[in-house]
Amino acid sequence: MSEPSSKPPVPLDGVRRYLEPGPIVLVSSAWEGCRNVMTLGWHTVMAFSPSLLGCVISSGTQSHELVRRSGECVINLPTTALTDQVIGCGNTSGAEIDKFTRFGLTAQPAERVNAPLIAECHAHFECHLVDDSLVDRYDFFIWEVVAARAAATPYYPETLHYTGNGVFMVAGEIIDRREQFLPEML
Amino acid sequence: MSEPSSKPPVPLDGVRRYLEPGPIVLVSSAWEGCRNVMTLGWHTVMAFSPSLLGCVISSGTQSHELVRRSGECVINLPTTALTDQVIGCGNTSGAEIDKFTRFGLTAQPAERVNAPLIAECHAHFECHLVDDSLVDRYDFFIWEVVAARAAATPYYPETLHYTGNGVFMVAGEIIDRREQFLPEML
Repeated sequence: MSEPSSKPPVPLDGVRRYLEPGPIVLVSSAWEGCRNVMTLGWHTVMAFSPSLLGCVISSGTQSHELVRRSGECVINLPTTALTDQVIGCGNTSGAEIDKFTRFGLTAQPAERVNAPLIAECHAHFECHLVDDSLVDRYDFFIWEVVAARAAATPYYPETLHYTGNGVFMVAGEIIDRREQFLPEML
Repeated sequence: MSEPSSKPPVPLDGVRRYLEPGPIVLVSSAWEGCRNVMTLGWHTVMAFSPSLLGCVISSGTQSHELVRRSGECVINLPTTALTDQVIGCGNTSGAEIDKFTRFGLTAQPAERVNAPLIAECHAHFECHLVDDSLVDRYDFFIWEVVAARAAATPYYPETLHYTGNGVFMVAGEIIDRREQFLPEML
């Protein structure tokens, strides 16, 4: 593991700014000497405070085993600069290779979980599993974000949004309409 | 109501192409003569077949009441052309106004549900409620898509991705990396 992250902390109720837009994320996990990274597009914000996220992690994958046994993960936000790594992690199995090594990703110690951060990502959301009641039926995990950090710049990074069939949409251009919102809706 | 939609049908296991990228959606609902539209960013794909979606619809809103009582909704996909309507629907209450009338949205009859489609949207996903076990705890509804239609063009519409604070990111630019994917991962 390298040095801890020097990215600034993000308020836990501010996670939606990064994940509500629906970007592809890299989920890192660890359990008893194994570690893995998976590419994931099926996630949603579920609450501001406590800061809750839900995501689908298919059974039969190594990541499913690691997050279920450890009750932890880190949701890392890659930008378009990591497109090759996102595709690589999505098209390989952690049962066969170490994806950190294969794709040149740097594991950093997290603050509150044993799963590593991915240093090259723009932001990191450390998560504790708080509800596994829908795991057996839908592979759906509900997480509480317990620590969050993000790079200070760029303020709106270019993110990848997966459509299936090998095609990503890129979000980066901004529409700022604050003046049209009710103050209590901001 | 106007005439039914003439948009082409979408295979039900192909809904991810529209929703996995994480766009803001407009959820329409109806129950006993009431109808409403809400702006929603907290949703995720949950399965291909059956085609399942999960979303958070806050208790206390009229839409929560309508979808809970009817067990139905339509998830409509707006493009950047509807930015004003997306903001309008997100900053008003269906208990006070009819949002279709106020924001110039056209209600069209759906095929499989009583909730109306929003004609101006790019795509429509008609949904039956299949699991309400997390509604009381998290306002989280799990839907099966039972009918789907989308405009034939543009193939990748410009969509809105909400970051909070009145700011949307726009997804439209495409990165096509099909050649880097395993065939079984496409």
